[in-house]
Amino acid sequence: MDENVLGLIAGGLTSVAMMPQLIKVLKEKNAEDISILMLLVLISGLSLWVWYGILKNELPIILSNGFSVLVNLTLLICCFIFKKKN
Amino acid sequence: MDENVLGLIAGGLTSVAMMPQLIKVLKEKNAEDISILMLLVLISGLSLWVWYGILKNELPIILSNGFSVLVNLTLLICCFIFKKKN
Repeated sequence: MDENVLGLIAGGLTSVAMMPQLIKVLKEKNAEDISILMLLVLISGLSLWVWYGILKNELPIILSNGFSVLVNLTLLICCFIFKKKN
Repeated sequence: MDENVLGLIAGGLTSVAMMPQLIKVLKEKNAEDISILMLLVLISGLSLWVWYGILKNELPIILSNGFSVLVNLTLLICCFIFKKKN
């Protein structure tokens, strides 16, 4: 199989797998169970993956980790908004 | 920075970020909030990333996604063990 297609499928699956978490937090407007520290560690790691993808010029890595950064930044923002409310 | 070092740091951070989930499930012996379907999707995606890493001969990708496969397989086994009990 073409490596890029494989990478895009892999990235698609790992991206889909984290959507329920985001949907749950947005629906319930509750992010108490989520650790802000771990989100920060995760976002740092994912950002470094994007950097790695740019250095290696690999689109699947840039796209899937870039998407993950966006999802987790949204979760982080939700944490701050919803924790203030409660 | 050397690309492999960057990839290993990135992989280390994203791996560390998912340990609290595993520790919580193992400590509380409760995996009710975890979706088995999403774990299966995630494990499929991560396995494809390992395959991608092997094709591209990139050690950081193989190591970090291989580790993630192990962590999520452990979570999956916990789901089955603890859901039966409850």
